[in-house]
This record gives sequence, C-alpha cells and structure tokens, in this order.
Amino acid sequence: MISPKKYAKAAKVSPNGFKTTNEFFNYVFKDEEMIWMGQNTNHLHDHSEIAEAMIDCINEGNYCKYPPPEGFPELKELVVRDLGLGDGFEALITAGGTESLYLCMNDILEPEDNAITCDPGYLIIDNFASRFACSVISIPIYSRECGYKLTPELVLENMDRNTHMVSLIDPLNPLGSSYTKDEIKAFADIANDHDIYLLHDITYRDFAMDHHLAADYAPEKTVTVYSFSKIYGMAGLRIGAIVATSDLIESIKSIVINDLGTNVISQAGAIAALRSKNRWVDRIRNTTFRNQKIIKDAVDEVDGAFIPVYPSSGNMMAIDIHKTGVDPLDLADYLLKRKIFVRQGAYTSRAFGDRYIRLSFSIPREQVEIFAENFVDVMEFLRPSN
Amino acid sequence: MISPKKYAKAAKVSPNGFKTTNEFFNYVFKDEEMIWMGQNTNHLHDHSEIAEAMIDCINEGNYCKYPPPEGFPELKELVVRDLGLGDGFEALITAGGTESLYLCMNDILEPEDNAITCDPGYLIIDNFASRFACSVISIPIYSRECGYKLTPELVLENMDRNTHMVSLIDPLNPLGSSYTKDEIKAFADIANDHDIYLLHDITYRDFAMDHHLAADYAPEKTVTVYSFSKIYGMAGLRIGAIVATSDLIESIKSIVINDLGTNVISQAGAIAALRSKNRWVDRIRNTTFRNQKIIKDAVDEVDGAFIPVYPSSGNMMAIDIHKTGVDPLDLADYLLKRKIFVRQGAYTSRAFGDRYIRLSFSIPREQVEIFAENFVDVMEFLRPSN
Repeated sequence: MISPKKYAKAAKVSPNGFKTTNEFFNYVFKDEEMIWMGQNTNHLHDHSEIAEAMIDCINEGNYCKYPPPEGFPELKELVVRDLGLGDGFEALITAGGTESLYLCMNDILEPEDNAITCDPGYLIIDNFASRFACSVISIPIYSRECGYKLTPELVLENMDRNTHMVSLIDPLNPLGSSYTKDEIKAFADIANDHDIYLLHDITYRDFAMDHHLAADYAPEKTVTVYSFSKIYGMAGLRIGAIVATSDLIESIKSIVINDLGTNVISQAGAIAALRSKNRWVDRIRNTTFRNQKIIKDAVDEVDGAFIPVYPSSGNMMAIDIHKTGVDPLDLADYLLKRKIFVRQGAYTSRAFGDRYIRLSFSIPREQVEIFAENFVDVMEFLRPSN
Repeated sequence: MISPKKYAKAAKVSPNGFKTTNEFFNYVFKDEEMIWMGQNTNHLHDHSEIAEAMIDCINEGNYCKYPPPEGFPELKELVVRDLGLGDGFEALITAGGTESLYLCMNDILEPEDNAITCDPGYLIIDNFASRFACSVISIPIYSRECGYKLTPELVLENMDRNTHMVSLIDPLNPLGSSYTKDEIKAFADIANDHDIYLLHDITYRDFAMDHHLAADYAPEKTVTVYSFSKIYGMAGLRIGAIVATSDLIESIKSIVINDLGTNVISQAGAIAALRSKNRWVDRIRNTTFRNQKIIKDAVDEVDGAFIPVYPSSGNMMAIDIHKTGVDPLDLADYLLKRKIFVRQGAYTSRAFGDRYIRLSFSIPREQVEIFAENFVDVMEFLRPSN
C-alpha cells in the first residue's frame, strides 16, 4: 500500500522557479495574460446569468447564515433532473467533485477492501481510496489495445474477492476516452453480480457527444460524482454533488464533513447555471470540439508526436511526445515561459508520466491558435539534435 | 467507542413538523422574518467592504479558474497577522472551521490515541475525533465548580498515556466560557510535558473582552482553528483556516481533501474582511455585548431560569431552564412558531441537553428585545401548572 503522503508528493511536482506549488498556482491565477490549458477549466462562459445570480445573492445579504446542510432543495432537484434520473435518486451538494470523491471512498470502502482505478487517471482518487481501503489496484490503460481506457475485461482480470469499488472517470481525465452504452452495461453487470460499487465520475460528461450513466443500469451500486467546475465554468466556486439512491445518500450523510453546508453564493450560481444551461451548452460544446482540430493539425506537424485519443470526449487531451525525446516537464516549463499553462504527464500518471503533456481547450479559439504555433516551435527547439 | 453514525444522529434532532433536518434549515434560511439566534451567526454587518470585494471578484470572471490550493498568499499572511503570531507560523485556508477541525484530527490522531473534549461542547469535534482515535474522553463540565469549562486539573485527572489531543473551544460554544492567560499557560505546560496536541478552536475569539492564544505558549503543540463565520459574518461562505507552525501545516497538507483550493469569492471577501476589520469590529463587539444585558433581564424575570455563564465571552449563551420543568425542545419549538430560532441543549450536549437552550445574540437590538418578551411569555405558558 502506498501511503497518502507519498501520493500527495507524487502529484505535486513544482514547476521550476517556484518555491512552492502554492506560489506557482498563485502566479498563474493572477497573470491575466496566461493561457489556461493546465487545469481543464472552462473559460468560454460569458457568465451573464450565473454572475448575476451570485451578485443578487450577495446583495440579499443572506450569506451571514448557514445554508441547509445537504444543499438547497431546489439545487438538489435540479441536479437529479439534469441527469434525467427518476424517483429514488437524490443529490447531496458538496464543496466540489473532490470532496464528493472523498466522501464516497469513506462511505463505501472498508479496511479489508481494494479499489480498482486506472493509470493514467485522476490520481487524487487513488490517494483517497488508499486512505480507506487496504490497497488500490491501478490498472495501466495507456495503450491502443484497451482503447486508452479501463475495460470490463481488464476489471474482470484484475479484480479479486476483496474488490469493492471500481472507479470510472468518464470521460477520462487526462485522455478524453469515454464509454459506449454496451461497455457501461457490462460494468453495471460486474457491479451487480459481484457486490462492487461503481464510482462514476462524470465531471466531463457534457463535453462528450454521447454519454451513458451507470446509474441507469446498476442504480443500487453506483455513486455518480457531479461537478460544476467544467461545463459550468465554476471551478473556483468549489461546488459539486454526489448523486445516488436515497439509501446510499443516507449512508453518505452519516460521514459527511461539512455539516454546515456548501457556499450559498456558489449554490445560487449553480442554480442559475442549471436553469440557463440549454441557452449556452451547445455553443461551449461546439467551440471546445472545434478547438481540438486546431491542436490536431499542429501535433501532426511534429514528427513523433501524436494524440492517443482523438477526438477527445472531454475538454482535455494528452499529446504523446515520448518518441520525440522531449521531456514533458521541459515542454511544460518552456510553454509556461510563453504564458501557456499545460501539465506534464506526471500530474495524472505514475507509470506513463514521461510520455505526454495534458492540455485543455475550453478556451477561446485565438488562444488555442497561439498554443498551436508555440507547440510546433518549442518542440523544434527542445528536440535533441542527434 | 461511539460510532460516527451514532454521533451524527444525536446531533440531528429534527424540530417537529419537518420531514428532514435539511427541510427545516431551508425553511429558516428562506424566511426573511425569522430571528436567527440558532446558529451563532452574526447579522450585524453592513457588509459594505466585504460585499463589494466579492462583487468585484465575480465581475473579474476569474472564478472559472482554480485558486492556489493552500489559499491566496495574501490571505494566508493576513490570517497569521490577525493573530499576531510571528515567523514560523503559517495558515492553511479551508472551506470553514469544520473542515479545519476534521483535517487536524486526521493529521494528529492515530488509532491507538484518545482525545479529550468537553460536554457541553461542539459535538462535531467528538464525531471527527472518533473517526481517527480509539476513543473520545468527553469530560462533563456543566457545573459551577469547574466554571463551566474544561480546566487544566480536569485534563490531568482524565488523561492517560494514550491521550494525544485536548480540544479547547475558547470561548466555548455553547456556554460562552473562556480561559485566562494562566489557564492557557497551564494547558500549554500539559501539552509540552506530555506530548499532547492542543486543538485551540478560537472561532469566537473576537467577541471576548480578553483572549489568549495557546500557540504563544506551546507553539509546536498547538493547532489553532480559525473561522470567518462569526465575527466576520460570513457563515454561508464556508471559509476558515488552520494556523500552526510550518512543520505542522506541512504535515496537514499531506492529508488535505480539497486540493483544488477554497472558493475564490469567499477568499476575496475574507481578504476585505480582514483589511476592514478595525473599522467595524468594536461596533459589533459592543452591540453583541450590550444585547446580553437585555436577555439577562428577561431571564431574571423567570423563576428557576438562569444563565450559567454571564457575561458570555462569545456571541452565544445557554439559558438553563431545568428547574422550571420546561423541556428545552418544547421551548425551541414554541419560539420557532413565533419566528425565533434558538437551539435545544441536545444540539451541544449529550449529558445535559435537557437542561438548557442555546441562543446567539449578534443580531440587531430590536430582535433581541422581541426574543426577551417572547421568552418570558412562552416560559409562562409552558411551565407545568403544579
């Protein structure tokens, strides 16, 4: 078992020139010229309805009170309805998808259990699982053979009698792979047949052209992790949810941490975001999708570089530069000097971190074009001469 | 060891007439006529600087980005400076004092340890401690003899070789008792001599006429839990901090949950709150302090009722009604019908919950006067006739 402290360190590679990770992030946050492709955030909102609702909430002055601990009933209902899930499902509002993940692990995993995750993947999931389970089985999925994603076959091969959770990030951060309906059904069968819970992290769902909920096929065995950080453009507002059957939610409530509720301004924004979604979601999806092509064309110009999953179903992708001899960390550092923020592979992989950078593209088209030019240029510069 | 699930249930007494606690809290939140004395929140701000800073933050549109994970450096520094702590201390910004408490327990307590708390007290502390330690020693302190607070003597009598943490809520929610400099020094000596950590929860510090930091006397053995919910009037914004030596903070960072940081709007508000504090803090302290006298006069009119700790050093107090024969739950229910929200004792005590109600008074004077009238009236009505 790898200790949480070790995981925490692995995920925190400080870019050169900054004393701490925190100072680095403060720098990129404050620099208005920075092109943000490093955290899968969404910079395409005009924010009108969401911002207005939050300003109204501030002006009402009610932020001096604690909100209802599980979230405002209106928001809880809107989240369930957004997923098209019927009676029997409930949402618990949290301070973000990360907190949702932690609570799910805490509620479901026991000390004798193991949890199945994948590598590349979202490493905080492994970290959280390791705090409650005996071990984490991190399945390597960085290969064309398995389609750069966890498959039902891989789960069946790797699970044992102590496996109590399978984590499905879908679409998958960092690669952008996602699941067909048949694959989701197959995972659901495994869950139902073997008393295993599916942790279905659907943070990037709305960027996908097609998406299927495990909760539809294994309702009693699925916890769905919901985020407002990506499609809604609200990453800095730290709000998310867990959606599951009322029985499961009842169990999770008993180990809740923030029993005084979630930020009232964020909740006001989230309600407005859900209510206005149909007015902006296609514009954002389409812009994000078209931006991929600009990146693809640039990558195609660089000998030895390729995009493992194209098109991505998320708002992020990996660019594999392993064969070019360029170190992803060097590439990230050089791009940062040109005010372009991307992530070296080590942030989302322990086994394959030397092979790729991850970048998101839910940013204005002009910024993606600047990346494309610089990527070709910097790769040329960094490529070993012999 | 009492399980977390049992603690969670004990703390969640649903007032009559509401299907769930969440619906109850939604009702009191939304009702603009409700007089809020039930959650120690502060309704005395005019909010100008804080609200303005938050609205500016929304208009800047940066909430689509993740903030630096440990908090904006400016805010981290302002929090340490607010406490007058010198070099070597650091603040970690969290989504509220509750999350701060959880992280401290997680970092400090090991399965063989026990933690000392007090009853009455803030029960979520016992709940969190029980998730990481072997047992929680909850010392009864509801008596004149010990001054309605944990004393160094009580700690020495009750601790054993496995005691690894003493929780000091100071001023104490729900009673409003607080510690002299000599008492804090004595706790610090115990901590230094016996390798015990002091969890110093100073949520209500700024309401006290006099307050002393354990961190000044046992710097290596103290974690100070800081909140923006009370004096700053920002309960619904869910922001707080942990302050400790850099070594201790470094250790806590390794088990952090929300590794994507704390709400950017709340942080903007918190920075403005700290920067503007000297312009409003005396007004709020003085109003709160004067409001106590109005309540005292009303309580003195009711035979058998008394205030255990008067004056309170916090913005809340208990009113003991045990000898009157009135059930605190009935009193809370009746006051609620008159749109006055207070808390029955069971919310903050397992052993003495039948003896008192808890109410806060950082609300406008006129509202306190309405409470005073209604308290006398409802006590008369509810008092058993024989």
